Amino acid sequence: MPELRKDPILGRWVIISVERGKRPKDFTPVIQKKKGGFCPFCPGNEYTTPPEIMAFRPSGTEPNKPGWALRVMENKFPALDVQGQLKKSGEGMFDRMNGVGVHEVVVETPDHYLSLSTMSEKAVEDTLWAYFIRLTELKKDSRIKYVLIFKNEGDAAGASLEHSHSQIIGLPIVPRTVKDELQGARNHFDMKERCIFCDIIDQERADGKRVIYENESYIALAPFAPRSPFETWILPKTHEAAFAPQQKSFKGLADILQRTLRLFDAILESPPYNFIIHTAPFSEEQSEYFHWHIEIMPKLTKIAGFEWGSGFYINPTPPEEAARFMREHEL
Amino acid sequence: MPELRKDPILGRWVIISVERGKRPKDFTPVIQKKKGGFCPFCPGNEYTTPPEIMAFRPSGTEPNKPGWALRVMENKFPALDVQGQLKKSGEGMFDRMNGVGVHEVVVETPDHYLSLSTMSEKAVEDTLWAYFIRLTELKKDSRIKYVLIFKNEGDAAGASLEHSHSQIIGLPIVPRTVKDELQGARNHFDMKERCIFCDIIDQERADGKRVIYENESYIALAPFAPRSPFETWILPKTHEAAFAPQQKSFKGLADILQRTLRLFDAILESPPYNFIIHTAPFSEEQSEYFHWHIEIMPKLTKIAGFEWGSGFYINPTPPEEAARFMREHEL
Repeated sequence: MPELRKDPILGRWVIISVERGKRPKDFTPVIQKKKGGFCPFCPGNEYTTPPEIMAFRPSGTEPNKPGWALRVMENKFPALDVQGQLKKSGEGMFDRMNGVGVHEVVVETPDHYLSLSTMSEKAVEDTLWAYFIRLTELKKDSRIKYVLIFKNEGDAAGASLEHSHSQIIGLPIVPRTVKDELQGARNHFDMKERCIFCDIIDQERADGKRVIYENESYIALAPFAPRSPFETWILPKTHEAAFAPQQKSFKGLADILQRTLRLFDAILESPPYNFIIHTAPFSEEQSEYFHWHIEIMPKLTKIAGFEWGSGFYINPTPPEEAARFMREHEL
Repeated sequence: MPELRKDPILGRWVIISVERGKRPKDFTPVIQKKKGGFCPFCPGNEYTTPPEIMAFRPSGTEPNKPGWALRVMENKFPALDVQGQLKKSGEGMFDRMNGVGVHEVVVETPDHYLSLSTMSEKAVEDTLWAYFIRLTELKKDSRIKYVLIFKNEGDAAGASLEHSHSQIIGLPIVPRTVKDELQGARNHFDMKERCIFCDIIDQERADGKRVIYENESYIALAPFAPRSPFETWILPKTHEAAFAPQQKSFKGLADILQRTLRLFDAILESPPYNFIIHTAPFSEEQSEYFHWHIEIMPKLTKIAGFEWGSGFYINPTPPEEAARFMREHEL
């Protein structure tokens, strides 16, 4: 019989359809080999993008010219506008505000054909540093209440350009998903005086069946109530509300993130995926109850009428199975 | 500048990126012409599906044999199991229940190549009657707390079979999206003693710019804060909490539903779409504050990291534009 499971933080239910019980080979993710051709993110084409906000490049090289290892610029087609002040207004019973915010792109490598799973671990560390530096910088902009850092890999996961890149969106309001997660974590803390994510880590480590991998500082888990097959969460093992390096290093995080993506590549044939860094809003960076983490979802199923109408998800692969496949695979 | 808009019921924000301002021809929905081939929903293949629960067929014809105009059966690969009693259990801090519920399929026409937009209006009425009859029947099952009726049209919208069909899922709990909608409507009623949907209809009719079509009993609107381009809501113009015929007829609803889908076909080149009937839970069928409606979303954009992480949606077509395109198109 299928099983309904509740995410302990959000109260979101998923249906784990054990009968369908899909194994990795049952999925046929829509993979697109990189085609190449003209790419605005490739070295030599810097003039086709907005000017760089920051870059990792050898000293002596000029901005907006080749030579960089990583580049951050404004999105050429931003979802929000970096200019202007926030203005709120009504239209009868409806509420709106102008779309003030930032929308930046992190080009993670000059090599068109590499991805986060195939680039050097150093390049992954650089990417994490770029996230952190931009997050720290955007905190100074009083119009920005929250910064969402995410990556879409592959066309089916929403990437409009195939050159490996991440996105940073600074929003004038704390988004609903973040608010809901904070509220769920706060409710748990109010009852138990403990961080719910720390409790989850403790239970999962004691139990082991949904643990994918651990290194010194981080753990990769298949969550109890995953929305999609092979959904994976990466969390720092010690309590930390906001995304930050540990002992001034992103080495451990780069290791576990890249390992997870390499396992996806190996087991699921380089599927499209999304990942999102869930970090505390600026006002809650010292929170005792929120615990930052990365949620990674390979794009293996479709969102359809049932998910739209219910907020439920149907997941054909139990997380215990997914974790076992990933844990047992030799890289 | 883009605009942030808030859905007045759910408090969900969307970004209407006016700059991107996509017109119908800018979208390239993934359309798949129906391929034909063996189909379990075609007449003559009734033996390959679970037995019919109900059918519209001439008297004298045998169940599970050709001759039917519409057929309802259990889903061959149900997300929930119709057998057994609901059992709730824990796993440490986690909560689960067994997946008791129903999952039925409504095959709307015997003709493999028709869709809701191209079949006869009578066949659309029949489909709505089938929804209503099954909803009424499932109300008698005390294990079922909510019945979700929805349709996925086209592979990109999650339809696994191309023969036109809808789905009915009876759930052992009221899903979160429904609860959130009820709560939003209740908050409005507590403040104003009025149904929020009735208020929306009044404001939209007075204003006109987001109205797509009206007939005697129903109105089709582009909502103020749509998640996707050309999202359309159909609502009864007089207050009604639960999905039901009006004056014992579904004629008016079939008219407006079919007209909407025909407009999609004409303007957006027969896009894949999802629709969901948002009806009150059984316990709230006389509610003064909830107002049933159908939400229809053509599948023109992708859900990616930003949407997953924020619960925000980015919509490149302002609803006023979408409504105007639909209103001005001659069918």
